[in-house]
Amino acid sequence: MDLNQELERVAELIERRLDEFLGSEPAPSGQARLIEAMRYAALGGGKRLRPFLLIESARLFGVAEEDALDAGTALECVHCYSLVHDDLPAMDDDAVRRGRPTAHVAFGEATAILAGDALQTLAFAILSRPSTHRDPSVCVKLIDLLAEAAGVQGMAGGQALDLAAEGETLGPMEVAKMQAMKTGALFSFACEAGAVLGRADELARGALKAYAAAFGQAFQLADDLLDAEGDEEAVGKAVAKDAGRGKATLVALLGVEAARARLKALVGEAEAALAPFGDKAATLKDAARIIASRRA
Amino acid sequence: MDLNQELERVAELIERRLDEFLGSEPAPSGQARLIEAMRYAALGGGKRLRPFLLIESARLFGVAEEDALDAGTALECVHCYSLVHDDLPAMDDDAVRRGRPTAHVAFGEATAILAGDALQTLAFAILSRPSTHRDPSVCVKLIDLLAEAAGVQGMAGGQALDLAAEGETLGPMEVAKMQAMKTGALFSFACEAGAVLGRADELARGALKAYAAAFGQAFQLADDLLDAEGDEEAVGKAVAKDAGRGKATLVALLGVEAARARLKALVGEAEAALAPFGDKAATLKDAARIIASRRA
Repeated sequence: MDLNQELERVAELIERRLDEFLGSEPAPSGQARLIEAMRYAALGGGKRLRPFLLIESARLFGVAEEDALDAGTALECVHCYSLVHDDLPAMDDDAVRRGRPTAHVAFGEATAILAGDALQTLAFAILSRPSTHRDPSVCVKLIDLLAEAAGVQGMAGGQALDLAAEGETLGPMEVAKMQAMKTGALFSFACEAGAVLGRADELARGALKAYAAAFGQAFQLADDLLDAEGDEEAVGKAVAKDAGRGKATLVALLGVEAARARLKALVGEAEAALAPFGDKAATLKDAARIIASRRA
Repeated sequence: MDLNQELERVAELIERRLDEFLGSEPAPSGQARLIEAMRYAALGGGKRLRPFLLIESARLFGVAEEDALDAGTALECVHCYSLVHDDLPAMDDDAVRRGRPTAHVAFGEATAILAGDALQTLAFAILSRPSTHRDPSVCVKLIDLLAEAAGVQGMAGGQALDLAAEGETLGPMEVAKMQAMKTGALFSFACEAGAVLGRADELARGALKAYAAAFGQAFQLADDLLDAEGDEEAVGKAVAKDAGRGKATLVALLGVEAARARLKALVGEAEAALAPFGDKAATLKDAARIIASRRA
């Protein structure tokens, strides 16, 4: 089975689990609309790359896919919440996401804010349940790590840096730090969560950490290259918007050619980090290669 | 010591703990601004009524105050996040809160949204740590309950119902349901969390649950009466705004006199629910009386 098929298969599992968590009893209309907005934001799209990394990282330690599924679903809830809030008019003001109107365009700003809020809450609800792991000490470890990755020292802090950077001139180091927090932190969580589920030793955790760091940077660089060069229909969201806003990206700072070279180097780093796992890590290596070469 | 002094004493403990959790290393300016906004939203005001209920509920079972403090602090983080988001222009569009400009007025909408997001994240971070409880099974139970109370079946769902109700005509039952979710759920969590920390039996839990339900309704009714009759300077936020917006409140539906009678009955219910605890519950009984008679 090639990697794209495997990605699709896992994406379908995550989709189904999200659908189950977001299924609901009949509710009064205001609440039903909130649930509809949460479903709109979470279902029907997305490569589910973060849960994929989580599941594959856990698999390195013999953890069955179904035993990593709920942790992956919780992670995806945080990712989806962040997209809804980042797209808001007060933030990046994006009207298109995954080829569809963004949540606030479809449901109004108030409902979109609430839907993001409630998706974040759902993530922690999922992680607190025995279906994520029957050992509560594993659950609290996952919750602690996800909160760290999503909070002010991670994703939210990175988004704050990104907002503050509009119109400013950041250097490559500053851009890298911002992206490590904004995008990298959830990828790092994915791999760390796999290690936690697999009760990995320090050596294995360190290797996965290094992989996640390189993977996250490669993902962001590929994303920025798509924005600089891609076409909107294929990408499913507005392109060339970073330049239009004067947003700091490494592509803008380094130029396209140097960015491509750096991307290649990062894929190499990601692969090298996995050396201790030998052939077992083939899928994770493939994942690093495939995100670097994506065209959409 | 009278109850107001006791409330102030506990509020100070919560303030100090929030200050510790929101203290930070030197950070790049965008991130520092986010932390500043979180501090603005969480510190320097608030009666800390929810943590107070939590601590007093736990005390019924012999739990020391310091062992309930972090759970109370986490709860207050969720309450503060909800205020920041509810005040946003797309939601209730309030400019004044606790006698100061609301967070989005002081920091801009984008930072306010992020500050609310990150305060929610912080709540779950706090609950996942051994300082909340050394037994992780207690931590995951608290996380599960808080996520339930804050999510689509609780506070966020209630806010959605409230938004949907603007301009609509709700009956008393519908208003009560909306308020039970929007405001009541966090009060219920406060009491339930105390029971969890105290490893209470079913009887005691049930009694606290009944108390919390009556307390939450009384609190909301008193709040609505203040809005209908209060003066802005004393209350510290805009008043008479519910009527101006056609917001559904029980005061509007029942009239002030009937609302006052209902408030009195609810205080009686709250006190009666605590009968199984005898004299130990004197402070919780006082708390129900005092919130019903508050003037600010």
